[in-house]
Amino acid sequence: MAAEWYLDFVDLKHRPRADEILALFKVEPASGMSIREAAGRVASESSIGTWTKLTTLKPRMRRLMAHVYEIEGPWVKVAYPLELFEEGSVPGLASAIAGNIFGMKALKNLRLVDVQLPRKYLRSFKGPLFGRQVIKKIFRRKSGPITAVVPKPKVGFTSREHAAEIGYALWRGGIDCVKDDENLTSQRFNRFERRVKLLAKFRDKAERETGEVKDAFINVTAPNLRELERRVKLVHEHGFRYFMIDVVVSGFTAVQTATDLARDYGMAIHGHRAMHAAFTRNPRHGISMLCLAKLMRVMGVDQLHIGTVIGKLAGAKREVLAIKELITQQEVEEIPGLRMPQRWGEIKPMLPVASGGLHPGILPEVFDIYGTTDLVIQVGGGTLGHPMGAQAGARAVVQAIEAYKAGVSLEEYAKTHQELRAALKHWGRTKPV
Amino acid sequence: MAAEWYLDFVDLKHRPRADEILALFKVEPASGMSIREAAGRVASESSIGTWTKLTTLKPRMRRLMAHVYEIEGPWVKVAYPLELFEEGSVPGLASAIAGNIFGMKALKNLRLVDVQLPRKYLRSFKGPLFGRQVIKKIFRRKSGPITAVVPKPKVGFTSREHAAEIGYALWRGGIDCVKDDENLTSQRFNRFERRVKLLAKFRDKAERETGEVKDAFINVTAPNLRELERRVKLVHEHGFRYFMIDVVVSGFTAVQTATDLARDYGMAIHGHRAMHAAFTRNPRHGISMLCLAKLMRVMGVDQLHIGTVIGKLAGAKREVLAIKELITQQEVEEIPGLRMPQRWGEIKPMLPVASGGLHPGILPEVFDIYGTTDLVIQVGGGTLGHPMGAQAGARAVVQAIEAYKAGVSLEEYAKTHQELRAALKHWGRTKPV
Repeated sequence: MAAEWYLDFVDLKHRPRADEILALFKVEPASGMSIREAAGRVASESSIGTWTKLTTLKPRMRRLMAHVYEIEGPWVKVAYPLELFEEGSVPGLASAIAGNIFGMKALKNLRLVDVQLPRKYLRSFKGPLFGRQVIKKIFRRKSGPITAVVPKPKVGFTSREHAAEIGYALWRGGIDCVKDDENLTSQRFNRFERRVKLLAKFRDKAERETGEVKDAFINVTAPNLRELERRVKLVHEHGFRYFMIDVVVSGFTAVQTATDLARDYGMAIHGHRAMHAAFTRNPRHGISMLCLAKLMRVMGVDQLHIGTVIGKLAGAKREVLAIKELITQQEVEEIPGLRMPQRWGEIKPMLPVASGGLHPGILPEVFDIYGTTDLVIQVGGGTLGHPMGAQAGARAVVQAIEAYKAGVSLEEYAKTHQELRAALKHWGRTKPV
Repeated sequence: MAAEWYLDFVDLKHRPRADEILALFKVEPASGMSIREAAGRVASESSIGTWTKLTTLKPRMRRLMAHVYEIEGPWVKVAYPLELFEEGSVPGLASAIAGNIFGMKALKNLRLVDVQLPRKYLRSFKGPLFGRQVIKKIFRRKSGPITAVVPKPKVGFTSREHAAEIGYALWRGGIDCVKDDENLTSQRFNRFERRVKLLAKFRDKAERETGEVKDAFINVTAPNLRELERRVKLVHEHGFRYFMIDVVVSGFTAVQTATDLARDYGMAIHGHRAMHAAFTRNPRHGISMLCLAKLMRVMGVDQLHIGTVIGKLAGAKREVLAIKELITQQEVEEIPGLRMPQRWGEIKPMLPVASGGLHPGILPEVFDIYGTTDLVIQVGGGTLGHPMGAQAGARAVVQAIEAYKAGVSLEEYAKTHQELRAALKHWGRTKPV
């Protein structure tokens, strides 16, 4: 057959230019295939190559070739000329560097670990409008954590129960934000419009009564983009400064639409990552959570769930810390096999969200990992499962934060705070699985 | 600690109701966890449960519980009350049945194999506008295959080269549709507007000269909703009956938006699945390609890439055939561990697209698998790599189809058809990897 040219895409002498997009892959070739051949296919398929030599290739097009420029064990780095990509489009980027390549027979497994984005490319994106500034600009506080609670069961409440009963109790108990869960959108038992309207009413009441700023992460995830726009607008018109979207099930185009809308309305975006683990969890295949989080910051999500390390959802401490640093700093260094270097330029930092199986007794461990300054914690079952009810559950969470910030043990603080005491008696320090 | 209630979600005596949504999972529990406990967590987390008993649960909410109703080896079936879901929203569906559950520590691996959708739920979706009727209504033929070719290299041509040089040659050579590849959207070297305009001009010329209907699968994948709408409108205004979208990197919300737009303009949608293999490929984890294809039919994509079995992309024959049957029939039976029964009601069938490393010499094998009647074939490198150039490459593809339909071997037909002869000499029957 006609000679293949996959190996033309491997050039270990290639020195990446400052404006190239660089990707780090973990490559596991199919049986009988060398890592060079497998890596060459990744660079080829995601730039100008295909399985056969082409009579239609023009000499000038060679400048669009991607190059494998480093192979170390299973770790392969590929440089992509910037011209290959549409400016400001994550769907466009993903279709190349995270597209067909995952399905190639030549590879047994392929993991996109990270992508390093050059300054010139980043300038075609806006990034978060607020990021960590939500703490100051929305809540008028100096530091975090921002607290959020999902009325649990996560689906089933009527709009009135959600807002007037649970939401109001949580706000009164000291929580900043009432949060929709990922699978609450607009169901018959709790329609979106009514929930927004009632949440606004009881937010105002709670603000008046507590003198604190209250908000909500209302899930605008919608079947289509017109409905998404309509939902964001409705949330905005009811005075919320935030909305929430399921970033993965909605998809990149919806996220970029949402970040445009958020800028139009001066709102912050809470990103829920439901479904991410379908492709982030297997360390040998798919796309890393770190890479996904990076793309969310690029697109302009203000805060994103990245795991708790200790809760019910998977995510090793080393990786969660690497993600936290990546999304909260303006420059990060390489961690071999885990992260590429990245300078963020004008793109603002995001806030990490820790959630999934948290309760007061294990919050100190979360704060040991994340700090308390730049953080959103979401404590659902660990508030609504409180034996004294929702408002007491909220108080117990607030008390655990107060104790930690004061450098006092939970047990000590619980002596004079009955809600925390009840929480500790109920759950202890257990880590849910 | 407070008692967990995950096992409450396992009820092997539960008889699914006709209006429940049923899901088939392959469950691999974490070490030390029974399959019942693991399965209970899947049903719990994707309906009304969480890791702790809730003081806020109201008795009437129990009607929203999902139930594990069958466990056979690793295969677990879960029934979800329809009321759990927003009508007509695939993002809403995915956030529940394909959401957080993939990330739970209690599971080592979790695979969503299929989801069976009841008639009542399907009625909240429109399905494809054309589906297989594109053959009759757009191309005015009685049967397929529809032929499409991507100008390769897949990126690098100017808009003029793409349309006037390659596109025109392909149309003149007998191909029905010039197709954009998944990573061609609107790059500097080939801007969208100019490509659409020039493709329209040379489509008209090719139609006049051949007397045949010509169209294109122009990729409208865009960074945001407004741009997606603008691109679809532009393609429509230039007289195309089709547009293409990268269904996975754009995301479910964009796909449902695209299907709405397609109905507004009376257009058909070609769905490219780039990135799907990040979560469909591992048979133990993620979401099956079959399940993804089903959701695309539900949302209204008219034709979708589902694999070739024999080309460069992964996909076992048994699975590809199960998908093909699922998307082309009005009712399919269960295949244990692979597919659930499904009745489609009013939802029209889709066309399967076979692509990825095809060339004339292996087309008969593709037709043996798919038939020729209801099929789109896309032959990129196997046309543009033809030693006599693009137009001859197109002719060779058409000749291979003619030979197969006439029941003549390619070798026999090649005796009197020089383009096919040259293709066979060049590639033989090789199967690219």
